[in-house]
Amino acid sequence: MALPAAVKIVEVGPRDGLQNEKDFVPTATKIELVNRLSAAGFPNVETTSFVSPKWVPQMADAADVMAGIERRPGTLYSVLTPNLRGLEGALAARADEIVIFGAASEAFSQKNINCSIAESIERFRPVTEAAKQQGLRIRGSLSCALGCPYQGDVPVSAVVDVVERFASIGCDEIDIADTIGVGTPKRTREVYEAVTRVFPRERLSGHFHDTYGQALANIYAALLEGITIFHASVAGLGGCPYAKGATGNVATEDVLYLMNGLGIDTGVDLNQVVAAGDFISTALGRQNASRAGKALLAKSRNEAACA
Amino acid sequence: MALPAAVKIVEVGPRDGLQNEKDFVPTATKIELVNRLSAAGFPNVETTSFVSPKWVPQMADAADVMAGIERRPGTLYSVLTPNLRGLEGALAARADEIVIFGAASEAFSQKNINCSIAESIERFRPVTEAAKQQGLRIRGSLSCALGCPYQGDVPVSAVVDVVERFASIGCDEIDIADTIGVGTPKRTREVYEAVTRVFPRERLSGHFHDTYGQALANIYAALLEGITIFHASVAGLGGCPYAKGATGNVATEDVLYLMNGLGIDTGVDLNQVVAAGDFISTALGRQNASRAGKALLAKSRNEAACA
Repeated sequence: MALPAAVKIVEVGPRDGLQNEKDFVPTATKIELVNRLSAAGFPNVETTSFVSPKWVPQMADAADVMAGIERRPGTLYSVLTPNLRGLEGALAARADEIVIFGAASEAFSQKNINCSIAESIERFRPVTEAAKQQGLRIRGSLSCALGCPYQGDVPVSAVVDVVERFASIGCDEIDIADTIGVGTPKRTREVYEAVTRVFPRERLSGHFHDTYGQALANIYAALLEGITIFHASVAGLGGCPYAKGATGNVATEDVLYLMNGLGIDTGVDLNQVVAAGDFISTALGRQNASRAGKALLAKSRNEAACA
Repeated sequence: MALPAAVKIVEVGPRDGLQNEKDFVPTATKIELVNRLSAAGFPNVETTSFVSPKWVPQMADAADVMAGIERRPGTLYSVLTPNLRGLEGALAARADEIVIFGAASEAFSQKNINCSIAESIERFRPVTEAAKQQGLRIRGSLSCALGCPYQGDVPVSAVVDVVERFASIGCDEIDIADTIGVGTPKRTREVYEAVTRVFPRERLSGHFHDTYGQALANIYAALLEGITIFHASVAGLGGCPYAKGATGNVATEDVLYLMNGLGIDTGVDLNQVVAAGDFISTALGRQNASRAGKALLAKSRNEAACA
């Protein structure tokens, strides 16, 4: 299969990336981050979560963030909605897309939400029905698709099963997420080969973590399977809650560098993303986890010093 | 093309990785590193450089390192030899393979060794002729194959030209090196498609840097072109001399994790390499740059804490 001519990059840094930050990130910082990202041209920015602040205190300002951002025409603003209450928040905030979630691993589902995979997805049915009535786009995020921190291997058939369940409750787009970054290109291709038999290829995405350094190889493998939607987190924001000190979300800058090198159109300006990554890394006081970001920042500093 | 069943991983950490360390690494530390790596099963360890200590003070102890290591049957110990004097050192130290070098970029060649590519390779002819007479294996390392820090783009035809020159002076193996890590899978495949027309595929290697995060994607692309020899540096030792703070050599642990996931035999024990990476990172007092290494170390620390 030839490489696609264009892909959609979904920037997940403001939500997935910041969610596990221990110190509360000021609302103004979150808003500036989202604005910088949408200005860079992303067609979709995962912006915040309408979830109980008891669960995720970092997202307690969801409504304020949504109210404060500039809406760029051409960018969809997505929010996580765990339940009907979350959906109410999303509607009030005029989100463009809601994100629901489920795991391909029974052990993960039981440990995290204390119910089976099937039950967890069935619980979203009232949410997706109400969302559909309101004309909202619905994305289903399927975690542990390439492996689980508790049960280890996850069979491909389990991924297919959850994809079918997500489809049955009305998901427009489904994320194949390697939550702990254990996948390699062989399994990645096997999973896409299997799930594209039950769900349209052009509405499947790849959400890869770089915990073992495999994310870009997996993205290239997914491109070879005709996948055209990829998630990434600016400056690699996010870390890995299952292994302290390990890498988490693949960095957006690295993904854009890959796409540019392959001649695949993203509509996103890499230099603006590098600047946004520098902005948020500085604001959080942490090292930029993007390799391309670090290299491009080093290059521009060298050029400035030589000028 | 199907993926190969087995590959040869050349560990370059002790030479390419340590070469640019500012503080002198004690000879005993270098020896322990080489011993740990050969014990892990590498078929080839790039061990040191027989080069003037004025040029590369870090390698001033080349003879002592070679004299101090344990020779594991099944491991070849390679050394860099810039000239006949270096070859004498390599022979006295009973090296198994010598490494000579040349760039695919005229700008790089002029800037680094003040002569043309053609001249630089012709200068190695007496070295390779003498090495052949002594039964030494010869490897040619071709830098800037995917881009140059001075001239930017490097035409594929320039890479092919240097490969032919290396072949004409007797190189048994030729490294296609992305010295500054700018390559992406499309160009990687184009280069291998071109060079395999003039040199045997099974004696071409891939030496990728991870400066823009692309190394593993490029290695996967090279595997799809049937390449079966890859270089890697334990703990990602090496950095990037062209962009301070940027990433350099691809980390061996990440490469082994990829090969294990693809079911490709390397003969190398990943856990022993992770331990070697921890050893040298601790000895140098710097962060381990391997993502897989960091994740596996975090996992084993968690398990130890829970036991």
